[in-house]
Amino acid sequence: MNLKRYRVGKKLKLKDISTDDTDKLDRDEIEAETAEIGEQLTSLQERLYAEGKQSLLLILQARDAGGKDGTVKHVFEPINPQGVVITSFKVPTETDLKHDFLWRVHPHAPAAGMMAVFNRSHYEDVLVTRVHGLIDDETAKTRFKHIRHFEELLASRGTRVLKVYLHISPEEQRQRLQDRLDDPSKHWKFNPGDLKERALWDDYTRAYQDALTATSTDEAPWYVVPADHKWYRNRVISELLLETLQDMNPQYPKSEYDLTNMAVGEL
Amino acid sequence: MNLKRYRVGKKLKLKDISTDDTDKLDRDEIEAETAEIGEQLTSLQERLYAEGKQSLLLILQARDAGGKDGTVKHVFEPINPQGVVITSFKVPTETDLKHDFLWRVHPHAPAAGMMAVFNRSHYEDVLVTRVHGLIDDETAKTRFKHIRHFEELLASRGTRVLKVYLHISPEEQRQRLQDRLDDPSKHWKFNPGDLKERALWDDYTRAYQDALTATSTDEAPWYVVPADHKWYRNRVISELLLETLQDMNPQYPKSEYDLTNMAVGEL
Repeated sequence: MNLKRYRVGKKLKLKDISTDDTDKLDRDEIEAETAEIGEQLTSLQERLYAEGKQSLLLILQARDAGGKDGTVKHVFEPINPQGVVITSFKVPTETDLKHDFLWRVHPHAPAAGMMAVFNRSHYEDVLVTRVHGLIDDETAKTRFKHIRHFEELLASRGTRVLKVYLHISPEEQRQRLQDRLDDPSKHWKFNPGDLKERALWDDYTRAYQDALTATSTDEAPWYVVPADHKWYRNRVISELLLETLQDMNPQYPKSEYDLTNMAVGEL
Repeated sequence: MNLKRYRVGKKLKLKDISTDDTDKLDRDEIEAETAEIGEQLTSLQERLYAEGKQSLLLILQARDAGGKDGTVKHVFEPINPQGVVITSFKVPTETDLKHDFLWRVHPHAPAAGMMAVFNRSHYEDVLVTRVHGLIDDETAKTRFKHIRHFEELLASRGTRVLKVYLHISPEEQRQRLQDRLDDPSKHWKFNPGDLKERALWDDYTRAYQDALTATSTDEAPWYVVPADHKWYRNRVISELLLETLQDMNPQYPKSEYDLTNMAVGEL
């Protein structure tokens, strides 16, 4: 699968990117492939953990009902939860707001050997804040710079930073929000506030385009993943993780002991 | 007092800077002035706290027995301890080392309204590590960059960053270490390891010169403060804090209520 076509470069027009792309592939086939990738991820995660030198951070951003929770659930299901830390960032607390906008995020950067997922992230501070006029363009620009510096810092310690925007259509969002109202087991996820944000669809589009192009770097690239079809979305993100982990190529540390002839009481 | 002469610019040769400068001033006079400045600091700190918008971070670095603890004790004694957080950074833990070198520092950045002191800091990661060959010059240079970016981030949220190197002579250090051996109430501070570091005096000089010139910026300037005389050192640092707080000019928030004619049971 050619993932490069989803990678964000210097220009980005979300309207020109398909939300329901499936690479003309068959759902059953795709799901079987995703499961197979899951097994490879499991094995690579164990190597990463055993090696204890590098780490992987996946940052997930999307509009409401964009599929962040579903991605976490399905893509990371096969992986040993001991090696993955998921952090969901909600509305900043009063204490958070008394510090720079990366202060609440930095402590959650993954330790060497670990995988981490940010379900929402510091990008909210250049998206929702901007759409609602809480920060001006100048501040947004400064924050883009600080974000680039911050992710560069993480990269310098061996953290691979992957950033994914789950790209859905307005119609798909409407359907998913309606599903939340209709299905009693999904109703708890419905938030009337989401409708207000939905009304600002184009403002968010502009804010995303700005933020993604300003912060898609070699150290921390952004990918716009077609996400109307959950099975295709899971496949793409699984593959993205797989290719990244293969490139990181973590190694089991070599044994330094030999206990073959060891007697009891001997050290 | 002209503090600019202690500010670090693009070049720094520590050997050319006096460690026992006292500005030809009299000790009693100086101590009286320091006490007076202390009262002004108390009042300005209260304004800073009440305003709740800006913060002040003082980073203290020095060789062993350079006077960091004494500076904290004497300069911050008059200030309300509720408004000041002192963080002493020791040898990094195993968990610290599994993250980028600023990971353990960032959480201690001061909240709006607060003053903070770092007794040692992230600068240890470009000093002791460098002298002992744990990092190469290239890594040091990259870390200087990350430090500049980090302090710029703090500044962008209204934090004034002041950095002070307490400058003592080898003879003064020898005397203070001997005092720790002779005085039972100081003995607990004596660490035989300090003698090993003392033997690397010139290596530390070079490492300090490099680090200070690479990271003395408008947002976060370094000051080399003559520190052989504790009373003079306290005077200079107190004045540095005073001038900074005066420049920050924190304001009491204006009252928005009037209870003059308020009856019981009324809101």
